[in-house]
Amino acid sequence: MAKRKNRKSHLQKIGLPPGSLIHIGEQKTEKASIHLINFDENAVHEKKLRDIEEAFTYLAQPSVTWINIDGLHEVSIIDKLGQHLNIHPLVLEDILNTGHRPKIEDHGDYIHFVLKMLDYDEKSNELITDQLSLILGKNYVITFQEQAGDAFDPIRERLRSGNTRIKRRKADYLTYALIDAVVDSYFIILEHLGEAIETLEEDLLNKPTPETLHEIHGMKRKMILLRKSIWPLREVINALEREESALIQKSTEVFLKDVYDHTIQVIDTVETYRDMVTGMLDIYLSNISNRMNEVMKILTIITTIFIPLSFIAGIYGMNFRYMPELEWRWAYFSVWLVMLGVAGIMIYFFKKKRWF
Amino acid sequence: MAKRKNRKSHLQKIGLPPGSLIHIGEQKTEKASIHLINFDENAVHEKKLRDIEEAFTYLAQPSVTWINIDGLHEVSIIDKLGQHLNIHPLVLEDILNTGHRPKIEDHGDYIHFVLKMLDYDEKSNELITDQLSLILGKNYVITFQEQAGDAFDPIRERLRSGNTRIKRRKADYLTYALIDAVVDSYFIILEHLGEAIETLEEDLLNKPTPETLHEIHGMKRKMILLRKSIWPLREVINALEREESALIQKSTEVFLKDVYDHTIQVIDTVETYRDMVTGMLDIYLSNISNRMNEVMKILTIITTIFIPLSFIAGIYGMNFRYMPELEWRWAYFSVWLVMLGVAGIMIYFFKKKRWF
Amino acid sequence: MAKRKNRKSHLQKIGLPPGSLIHIGEQKTEKASIHLINFDENAVHEKKLRDIEEAFTYLAQPSVTWINIDGLHEVSIIDKLGQHLNIHPLVLEDILNTGHRPKIEDHGDYIHFVLKMLDYDEKSNELITDQLSLILGKNYVITFQEQAGDAFDPIRERLRSGNTRIKRRKADYLTYALIDAVVDSYFIILEHLGEAIETLEEDLLNKPTPETLHEIHGMKRKMILLRKSIWPLREVINALEREESALIQKSTEVFLKDVYDHTIQVIDTVETYRDMVTGMLDIYLSNISNRMNEVMKILTIITTIFIPLSFIAGIYGMNFRYMPELEWRWAYFSVWLVMLGVAGIMIYFFKKKRWF
Amino acid sequence: MAKRKNRKSHLQKIGLPPGSLIHIGEQKTEKASIHLINFDENAVHEKKLRDIEEAFTYLAQPSVTWINIDGLHEVSIIDKLGQHLNIHPLVLEDILNTGHRPKIEDHGDYIHFVLKMLDYDEKSNELITDQLSLILGKNYVITFQEQAGDAFDPIRERLRSGNTRIKRRKADYLTYALIDAVVDSYFIILEHLGEAIETLEEDLLNKPTPETLHEIHGMKRKMILLRKSIWPLREVINALEREESALIQKSTEVFLKDVYDHTIQVIDTVETYRDMVTGMLDIYLSNISNRMNEVMKILTIITTIFIPLSFIAGIYGMNFRYMPELEWRWAYFSVWLVMLGVAGIMIYFFKKKRWF
Amino acid sequence: MAKRKNRKSHLQKIGLPPGSLIHIGEQKTEKASIHLINFDENAVHEKKLRDIEEAFTYLAQPSVTWINIDGLHEVSIIDKLGQHLNIHPLVLEDILNTGHRPKIEDHGDYIHFVLKMLDYDEKSNELITDQLSLILGKNYVITFQEQAGDAFDPIRERLRSGNTRIKRRKADYLTYALIDAVVDSYFIILEHLGEAIETLEEDLLNKPTPETLHEIHGMKRKMILLRKSIWPLREVINALEREESALIQKSTEVFLKDVYDHTIQVIDTVETYRDMVTGMLDIYLSNISNRMNEVMKILTIITTIFIPLSFIAGIYGMNFRYMPELEWRWAYFSVWLVMLGVAGIMIYFFKKKRWF
Repeated sequence: MAKRKNRKSHLQKIGLPPGSLIHIGEQKTEKASIHLINFDENAVHEKKLRDIEEAFTYLAQPSVTWINIDGLHEVSIIDKLGQHLNIHPLVLEDILNTGHRPKIEDHGDYIHFVLKMLDYDEKSNELITDQLSLILGKNYVITFQEQAGDAFDPIRERLRSGNTRIKRRKADYLTYALIDAVVDSYFIILEHLGEAIETLEEDLLNKPTPETLHEIHGMKRKMILLRKSIWPLREVINALEREESALIQKSTEVFLKDVYDHTIQVIDTVETYRDMVTGMLDIYLSNISNRMNEVMKILTIITTIFIPLSFIAGIYGMNFRYMPELEWRWAYFSVWLVMLGVAGIMIYFFKKKRWF
Repeated sequence: MAKRKNRKSHLQKIGLPPGSLIHIGEQKTEKASIHLINFDENAVHEKKLRDIEEAFTYLAQPSVTWINIDGLHEVSIIDKLGQHLNIHPLVLEDILNTGHRPKIEDHGDYIHFVLKMLDYDEKSNELITDQLSLILGKNYVITFQEQAGDAFDPIRERLRSGNTRIKRRKADYLTYALIDAVVDSYFIILEHLGEAIETLEEDLLNKPTPETLHEIHGMKRKMILLRKSIWPLREVINALEREESALIQKSTEVFLKDVYDHTIQVIDTVETYRDMVTGMLDIYLSNISNRMNEVMKILTIITTIFIPLSFIAGIYGMNFRYMPELEWRWAYFSVWLVMLGVAGIMIYFFKKKRWF
Repeated sequence: MAKRKNRKSHLQKIGLPPGSLIHIGEQKTEKASIHLINFDENAVHEKKLRDIEEAFTYLAQPSVTWINIDGLHEVSIIDKLGQHLNIHPLVLEDILNTGHRPKIEDHGDYIHFVLKMLDYDEKSNELITDQLSLILGKNYVITFQEQAGDAFDPIRERLRSGNTRIKRRKADYLTYALIDAVVDSYFIILEHLGEAIETLEEDLLNKPTPETLHEIHGMKRKMILLRKSIWPLREVINALEREESALIQKSTEVFLKDVYDHTIQVIDTVETYRDMVTGMLDIYLSNISNRMNEVMKILTIITTIFIPLSFIAGIYGMNFRYMPELEWRWAYFSVWLVMLGVAGIMIYFFKKKRWF
Repeated sequence: MAKRKNRKSHLQKIGLPPGSLIHIGEQKTEKASIHLINFDENAVHEKKLRDIEEAFTYLAQPSVTWINIDGLHEVSIIDKLGQHLNIHPLVLEDILNTGHRPKIEDHGDYIHFVLKMLDYDEKSNELITDQLSLILGKNYVITFQEQAGDAFDPIRERLRSGNTRIKRRKADYLTYALIDAVVDSYFIILEHLGEAIETLEEDLLNKPTPETLHEIHGMKRKMILLRKSIWPLREVINALEREESALIQKSTEVFLKDVYDHTIQVIDTVETYRDMVTGMLDIYLSNISNRMNEVMKILTIITTIFIPLSFIAGIYGMNFRYMPELEWRWAYFSVWLVMLGVAGIMIYFFKKKRWF
Repeated sequence: MAKRKNRKSHLQKIGLPPGSLIHIGEQKTEKASIHLINFDENAVHEKKLRDIEEAFTYLAQPSVTWINIDGLHEVSIIDKLGQHLNIHPLVLEDILNTGHRPKIEDHGDYIHFVLKMLDYDEKSNELITDQLSLILGKNYVITFQEQAGDAFDPIRERLRSGNTRIKRRKADYLTYALIDAVVDSYFIILEHLGEAIETLEEDLLNKPTPETLHEIHGMKRKMILLRKSIWPLREVINALEREESALIQKSTEVFLKDVYDHTIQVIDTVETYRDMVTGMLDIYLSNISNRMNEVMKILTIITTIFIPLSFIAGIYGMNFRYMPELEWRWAYFSVWLVMLGVAGIMIYFFKKKRWF
């Protein structure tokens, strides 16, 4: 659904000059909220802003400023901030367009990241995606989310608490920490999906129904979405590692390598799940074939045994005047014998064919 | 259909020396029309030309001239223009051959692009392709289309209106704007296809018919066409970004990167749709298997219950003179009991097999 | 068939030292024929040679000499020519071995090409391949074909006629023209195949028979053969473009780029056809499934409606002495009512299952 | 199962700063055990340590020290050792996280390897994976395993015994020997799987049951796990060969090439097995189709022969008063003739269709 | 089988230091035999050796020495030869391990090749593989085979006979000739397989049985084995061409290019065969579907025509006292009319559905 609205908005934009700021995507929150944390080794200032201009004094300081904006529809916020920090209009346009795949763009003075945050809605049994745009500048990090609710609370907690490493280091380390939190949150999704797959597998073995098939296909589709959101991240982090930007300190690289490993781990798990789901589909279809085969056998056994017998009974149900057998003393008894014989031969034949 | 005509025309050309100008492809418009816009930061001249020679004075000026030609069958127009601008005959030949895949060729003095414009005909439910050839020179852009009707009206509007960025910049920016408009128009196609896929999915779940299967296959074929038209564009724009041509200004590169991102987004969506359509095909086929299984079960249940019963009835329908049971007082009643017993055992057996 | 003979001849060669000249492949023509055209800007000499030695005087002139040899089984011709022009024995061996894939080899003084000419035999509905070996030297082009009949007549015509570009240029341009003619001839094959595919599609929709399936498989096999013959050509022409050989003039490169584009176009069409044929196979198989499903439904409906009714009729066909119903006044009428009731319930059930 | 616990532990870690040491994975052993071997060309010291501090004096010596730790849940051991040897906290974190894929990381002073040891549990018929982390320093090798039991006993034996090559060489050769032992142990797994596949194949040919299908799918899943564990190893060893680290002596490279070859051999075998298992699945499904076809034929033969005959018998079982045939002298005999004729025609028809 | 023994032997080796010489693989010949040919342009010495030491004097001469050893189980021969020529123990180990894939290793003083010789056993209808290890030194070539019987007799013949090129050239040319002979022998295998495929295809069209399916699967498996043996050879020869070893003379390169082309030709044919076999599988399965469909139709036609008729007959077979129709004069005749009508409608319906 979100997808279609997204496309529709994109249509509105057609023909406008590039860099026109229009929010493309569903409006997921009512009012955009701005949250600022300014910190260095010694002090932390945290503030909920009404107006984005309040942030400008913090940005002028050498300490690190992290501004998080939830909700993209109030375009003026993003516009003002972009002009203040001298962000290229196309980057701002990208932030507002939530249909991007994960990417990284180095603009010299700042680096622009696009990531996908994922959430698993247990009610609708659907994956929810939320685009995170992140701008890393010399002494600031700005994060744009479509809606409130993210995986960054532990990082905020670490910033608020005592003399932690995150406070001693610069904006690049904060960026790493945020990306790391996003990647870590993928493990939660995988956890949920892993459980769902196990449940599905048990259903498949014990009581497969057309419903099971439907769920397998649903799972497959979730895998496609997951892959699409996570695969490009691999290249993003890889590019970041190789990046020779003044914005990334040498000492942060080892941490990026670590996130990279986690991303690979996530991708590996997604691939394994995909293989498992594909395997389940095969098992389901083989099961149906097997069952149909079994059904056919039963039908054939019953039919081929009784149809000839019924025929024999039919013969002696005919009303011809001249049917010598009808008058014989042991005819009825003999017919029974014949019938049992026919049935016996049939059963022997099926046994030989290993149908039982 | 267009395809076959295309091939046929190609055959006519076999044996001619290279660079012979023959229009290869369907004649999609009756009369070729030439439209010229000449602009710089201060002025805009717009004109519908009767004769291509009228354009030559504009081309001599330092301001940017955009000539758009709808209809390729009037070869003389293209020939004259080519000779005036010193375009290589093979390029002119390419412009006339509408079977090309998207490509870019740098000829030093000018760059030659081939793109595919797509349109969705809702009546016939078909995709219509229209080849756009674009020649970017020092101070001119020439676009060749197979027929009237394109996605460039908003750009014309921006050129006509006040002091917009597009007027302040050069021919390379205009080229970017045109390519961007083409890529944007793909989103409209995707929009239509997305809706069609959703309708198909609902049909698939609620009331799948052989017709549904047919439509799924039609959709798959559209995906193949889309991919073929759009995939190469990725390389084209990529090549353009890396191009070290004097015709492309440094400041235009960031815009090219933006179109590139949009192209990737389009390709991603096409791939997702393809996966969805493939999934739908699987679901359809599984559904048929499921249904056949169900049909088989019903057939088997009814048959295996009633065939033995009919056999019993047949037995006592025989006309033998000596059948002791026929005379018994409770025989008829007992036969009913036996029959109910047999039916009961069958039903129990099917229950145990979970056929209900 | 040709294939197997080819392999057999190859076996004869095993154990011989490399460079032994033995024709590997079917003998497709009775007598080898040698045809020579010598031309420069001013004059054209054309001659059918009895003896290859006659060509040597022409080869000594600075004008371009094109020798075409149809039929490979007269090994002595190739041997003498090879020795005169100092061609490596392995190249001669390659010319005689018709099982090669398209390739290009630069030997310094000359470049050796292998191409596949294709022809469509409408009678047998088969593709016929003919290996074309081409040797491009400083002032000569030698072409070897397995049999008479090729796509080069228009080129010969152009050479014979007035002051055409092909006569003003050198051997490398002639080579380009020949390759271009081969690639152009692929379009004819594609034309035929395209028509055959359309006919197949109509058959598939209107009246699919097992024969249709057979033809689809035959088409698939043709696609495999086409791909095998054409794919490597792409690399060949690409290599030729990048080739820094003194034999290729700078001005010929733009023409090579053009052939390259045509080759890509051919490959693209082959891929599209392959996708279409694969799709047709899927449609055919789905159709069979659909039909079987329909057949099963009819069988099940008829059987499940009438088998219980027949059972009821069977009951009252029994000959027990004590069957109270038989004596009732309205029994027969009531049985009809019961039967209609049972049938009605069944029909309602099938309607609910949407089997009609 | 182990997998899911792994994921769960990973969740506990979310939000903690990177480098926090928490064991991620199942606790597979009750008490961690530390085993140390210190050796040079002349002497070997072997010791079971209670406390990791005991190892520090050995590590200070120029001779090679190999510390093996079974069990990862006693985090303090790893923490202390890491601090003593100045290992980066993220490496320690990696050692504790058992969900990694095989990898190699060069940290300058030491190289960190992750490998997967595999074991085949014949009881449960499952593959058991055990993550091996290995740290190669200037004069030490440290191996971390999830549980006791490994493939390294022969290496220990070689170290204990006389003047073997392994004792004359340095830590890099020991590392090679350990990796080699792991790769060699894969052959045992392949041996087991090869036997299981052969058994499966015999079952498949002699007596295929749905159970067989289940086992084939189980085998396929094992192949997926194997591939996932072994494929990355190829890149790891390849990277190690190219590594220009001071820790790897030139003379060890030829041995690495050897392990590389063995790894390729293992991967090749896995791929062959995979192809075989896939083929078995196809055979199984074709078998089911074949059988169903055969069952259908029998059903059809019996039914189509006897149903018309029963109909004839039914006709003459009707009780109409005026049925002239009933009174005829040879009617009964003629009916039999007609029936035999009908049956004969049917049988002839089936013979012609080659159903027998 | 050979495969499993191979693996078993590998297990015996686990834990031994690298370079321990143990023959891994089946013992295919009873006694190893050593055959030596020493030649230069002028003379040829040929000898069957009892003891490998006899060869050492020949190896000391500047003329080329070719030692061929059939049978790998007499490890001492290989050991002595290896020590004399200073071959690395791991290379000797590789020679004894017959599970390798084709490869090439440059050790400076000598190059080590592993190839697969293939043979087709017509009795068992199986492919037999024989590993060929080849060591090319400055003035010697040593070949190791698992058993007697190879494709090298023509080369021996050429060496024995007069002043052939092979005698004028060095060890590298001999190596080329040997590899060429191996590649040529693949054509024989392909010849056999091509014939088998044609036979299969005819069976498939004329009289497909489950046996045919079995053979198709067997063929597919052979293709997998062939590919596995031949594919890596491509890289081997390619590496050899690029090799800048003093052991390979410039003039041999053109011959290597020739073998390379042959290898490509072999691989191409294998791929084509694979496609054909896959296509045959599809045809077989479609055939079964087609047949089942046909069987179902016949069953359905017969059943749906006769079951209603039998029901009607059953009605009038009931013994109710009050059944007015039974008494009617033309009842029996009318019932026949009704029955013919019902049957006619059914047949019309099936005709309309195009079931005949």
